[in-house]
Amino acid sequence: MGRPPRLLCCLFLALSLAAVARAATRHHEWEISYQFKHSDCARKLAVTINGQTPGPTIRAVQGDTVVVRVKNALLTENAAIHWHGIRQIGTPWADGTEGVTQCPVLPGDVFTYTFVVDRPGTYMYHAHYGMQRSAGLNGLIVVSAAPGGPDAEPFAYDGEHEVLLNDWWHRSAYEQAAGLASVPIVWVGEPQSLLINGRGRFVNCSAMAAGACNATHPECAPQVFAVVPGRTYRFRIASVTSLSALNFEIEGHPMTVVEADGHYVKPFVVKNLNIYSGETYSVLIKADQDPNRNYWLASNVVSRKPGTATGTAVLSYYGGRSSPRRPPPTTPPTGPAWNDTMYRFRQSVATVAHPAHVQPPPPRADRTILLLNTQNRIGGRTKWALNNVSFTLPHTPYLVAMKSGLLGAFDRRPPPETYAHRGYDIYAVQPNPNATTSDGLYRLRFGSVVDVVLQNANMLAPNNSETHPWHLHGHDFWVLDYGIGRFDPAVHPATYNLRDPVLKNTVAVHPYGWTALRFKADNPGVWAFHCHIEAHFFMGMGIVFEEGVERLAQLPREVTGCGKNNGH
Amino acid sequence: MGRPPRLLCCLFLALSLAAVARAATRHHEWEISYQFKHSDCARKLAVTINGQTPGPTIRAVQGDTVVVRVKNALLTENAAIHWHGIRQIGTPWADGTEGVTQCPVLPGDVFTYTFVVDRPGTYMYHAHYGMQRSAGLNGLIVVSAAPGGPDAEPFAYDGEHEVLLNDWWHRSAYEQAAGLASVPIVWVGEPQSLLINGRGRFVNCSAMAAGACNATHPECAPQVFAVVPGRTYRFRIASVTSLSALNFEIEGHPMTVVEADGHYVKPFVVKNLNIYSGETYSVLIKADQDPNRNYWLASNVVSRKPGTATGTAVLSYYGGRSSPRRPPPTTPPTGPAWNDTMYRFRQSVATVAHPAHVQPPPPRADRTILLLNTQNRIGGRTKWALNNVSFTLPHTPYLVAMKSGLLGAFDRRPPPETYAHRGYDIYAVQPNPNATTSDGLYRLRFGSVVDVVLQNANMLAPNNSETHPWHLHGHDFWVLDYGIGRFDPAVHPATYNLRDPVLKNTVAVHPYGWTALRFKADNPGVWAFHCHIEAHFFMGMGIVFEEGVERLAQLPREVTGCGKNNGH
Repeated sequence: MGRPPRLLCCLFLALSLAAVARAATRHHEWEISYQFKHSDCARKLAVTINGQTPGPTIRAVQGDTVVVRVKNALLTENAAIHWHGIRQIGTPWADGTEGVTQCPVLPGDVFTYTFVVDRPGTYMYHAHYGMQRSAGLNGLIVVSAAPGGPDAEPFAYDGEHEVLLNDWWHRSAYEQAAGLASVPIVWVGEPQSLLINGRGRFVNCSAMAAGACNATHPECAPQVFAVVPGRTYRFRIASVTSLSALNFEIEGHPMTVVEADGHYVKPFVVKNLNIYSGETYSVLIKADQDPNRNYWLASNVVSRKPGTATGTAVLSYYGGRSSPRRPPPTTPPTGPAWNDTMYRFRQSVATVAHPAHVQPPPPRADRTILLLNTQNRIGGRTKWALNNVSFTLPHTPYLVAMKSGLLGAFDRRPPPETYAHRGYDIYAVQPNPNATTSDGLYRLRFGSVVDVVLQNANMLAPNNSETHPWHLHGHDFWVLDYGIGRFDPAVHPATYNLRDPVLKNTVAVHPYGWTALRFKADNPGVWAFHCHIEAHFFMGMGIVFEEGVERLAQLPREVTGCGKNNGH
Repeated sequence: MGRPPRLLCCLFLALSLAAVARAATRHHEWEISYQFKHSDCARKLAVTINGQTPGPTIRAVQGDTVVVRVKNALLTENAAIHWHGIRQIGTPWADGTEGVTQCPVLPGDVFTYTFVVDRPGTYMYHAHYGMQRSAGLNGLIVVSAAPGGPDAEPFAYDGEHEVLLNDWWHRSAYEQAAGLASVPIVWVGEPQSLLINGRGRFVNCSAMAAGACNATHPECAPQVFAVVPGRTYRFRIASVTSLSALNFEIEGHPMTVVEADGHYVKPFVVKNLNIYSGETYSVLIKADQDPNRNYWLASNVVSRKPGTATGTAVLSYYGGRSSPRRPPPTTPPTGPAWNDTMYRFRQSVATVAHPAHVQPPPPRADRTILLLNTQNRIGGRTKWALNNVSFTLPHTPYLVAMKSGLLGAFDRRPPPETYAHRGYDIYAVQPNPNATTSDGLYRLRFGSVVDVVLQNANMLAPNNSETHPWHLHGHDFWVLDYGIGRFDPAVHPATYNLRDPVLKNTVAVHPYGWTALRFKADNPGVWAFHCHIEAHFFMGMGIVFEEGVERLAQLPREVTGCGKNNGH
């Protein structure tokens, strides 16, 4: 018990201090307000951060603490911001999911989000309250790998660009939500424009009323990405769309996919990239084309029949003879056929862990939840449901209710674990589209391994099945397998990829397909898991998991004080 | 000390019990939600009560207790409802003024307003939060006189109709508010339509995009008021306009004005009635015209140069040969010249207390507050100010802050009592339009008599002065005098009408004019006093009075729990 332990102790201390010294705290002061914006040249009232949509990019280094002091300067409307892809280990109350992890932030109030970005990668943030995300409250989070650490990038590049993809409507989120809740439903329809870094171009600008659209407004001038000939660039690409599945292409520049949702993947080359709402990717491109002309960056709708023009930006070479502002001499790429499901399916399957960064999944699950995704009708309203249960948010956030012992705050009956899959025809319209609503949640044994299989099916209209990008809060999950057709629990698990499955936080369930995931319930908190299409979640397409809330200390008072816990 | 006192006691008890037995409790269950409405035939997302705008009329008898259980079913937006004209004696927390008397009601929350309607008369309710009133949250309160009581009506009639006047915009209240807060200001502009009982007719309906306007939508079919030939009708008329001063006329039927803001007035006959936002009137008409044709009810903008078509409804005789749905054979009345200030001034002056219902004012004031109404600029923004102080609502409602001892919740410095009136040229543009903002309030000695003189002046634009309808919460005030020009404290009070001034809760300050009021600070609470033009209050045109809050018991917990008093 003499010197060596003391020495070790000192060594540990020195190392810890070094780590502390390296880990920075990144402070941000944000004010949320409505501002008139011309994102696609048409004037629209948008929810902005410090006057901007998208909001400022959060940049940090792995291990940093991010502190965002959000002041709600809206007039009558509350707010909450979700840090999409950040697992919030130890800070589940900072997940920003109104109704799940926190009370809304009232006008005039300040809410401070504090969390550690423990993994490098490309993430995003956006409102998680009502349909405010589609009103403009969104942005990027870029976390660099700690230099020399175990998560250092297994690829090299000379420069970096960031691409935030979005879809954009001229109607307000209020009108969209009111339409979705109407009997009969008034669907949001296809977006008016597709945005790249908050910039688009509404094709019918000149047909709008005087003053409503200004095709030369600087806010809608296309983004120009400049590259040096011969260099390799990392493009970080995120999609925060409300509805659209997108295909992204950089004309003439094949992309090597190297990261997905903050995890390094086995590199594969694509002409263009399918990206679903809530997903992020990094790709590498080589600036090896003729530098004397510009090239299109193009965003196209896939999976739904497109009703929206290609969203564009411009790639321009330094030192070339073309002005960065000159449109490329070509027509923008139009992407693959919108209904080529197998084209997209193959990219999904090709996305596996980088050989040097495989984190093997647990070999088996303690519990399997099989979720049939259907469109239903409840009281004349069109809804989405899982196993015929359509999700509703409770009046008191789950985390607040559970830590305050408010037993009656939500339905104590857990939603169903499975559906009557034997003989179910996923290609037919469900004979009985009735469903119930519930705010019940799935309670997971802490530390247990959970499989979720998402089974897609036909919608209310015949011959129709959509792509649903499902996003899990508080965790990454291993993507064990994808299939087309009906998942058979007796057959398909045998061929799951347990060798090198990619870890993600958002994954597509393809039309008439299924996707199998595995995660470990080891992050104390309450976590939403839902379709990232904003209208679909609004219509009930989500569930909630709870694990280990008993391990959490008292909640910060900021997140409490609403619903049955209105504190007074 | 024998029988007589005991007998008296029993008599009092019996009388009290009888009174209690008579006084009913009127329960209402309301749900506030957004719904698409076609109030002026154009489709607009409106804030509704139980799906309707205007909301249901509250009917009660003097002395009743009204209980309104309001559920906020908006998605992300809070709410609060003000019971305009109800003094809330003993229930100042039920005044519904967000930021003054209560915290906002969150989505999913239920707030129960309980108050006594202690005087008969015509009143209204409307949102008092942000600019929600103009989004459609408004309606009527009709309180009948207790039969045989001292407030029985000094006039007779055979039937009754109710008329709620409003102005209507197609842009959302959000867009209006964002425009008002912009640099430079984007003014709300003239309304698209004028509504009578929530029904209007947008004149450019056919020019709107497909589906945006339906000229035959039942929601915009004009209201028909049916009368029996030879009978006398009371029309209760209220204006809840956001902006417009109105002139109301029933074609061919002179109106005898008998009530204003819940007080009986000395009857006078008008061809048409000027009515300002926040005012109510009752008029009597005799159904003595040719019953074989219909007649217009017409609402026209006055005081601002009209940019809006006449709002109309139809008066139809029972038993006449004209279908109630047939438009009258004439052109709707267009009212007096919009800029005939003296026409409106004379009606103001003519409105005095009914001889049998005079409540004489205290002979003198303990304190006089002289408020110069000006348009100003602060940080590039256009504002309204009183004595060059532009009002802002505090983050914590005054009543909550004061009863919780939160000293730092608002500016402790009282706003100025007067302005440099000597030699001030109210007809000129103010040479220095600078102003400051403040959330300070005027603290009144409990029981003291307060005079307020509202002095109008020129706006930022030359040769421009508007009409401002000022509304006082928690009290009625005596209207002592009106003038045109500069009020002189040394001269004008000498000729105040102390004999039979009318009591009102809302009064016009005419262009370049002044209005002198007196009230007794005898209602413990915190009370807003402000221009009832929604955009003007939003831009700072208001003040707040406090009196006797120390006499109030603990607040109901429902009104607390926000701002610095977020209770957790």
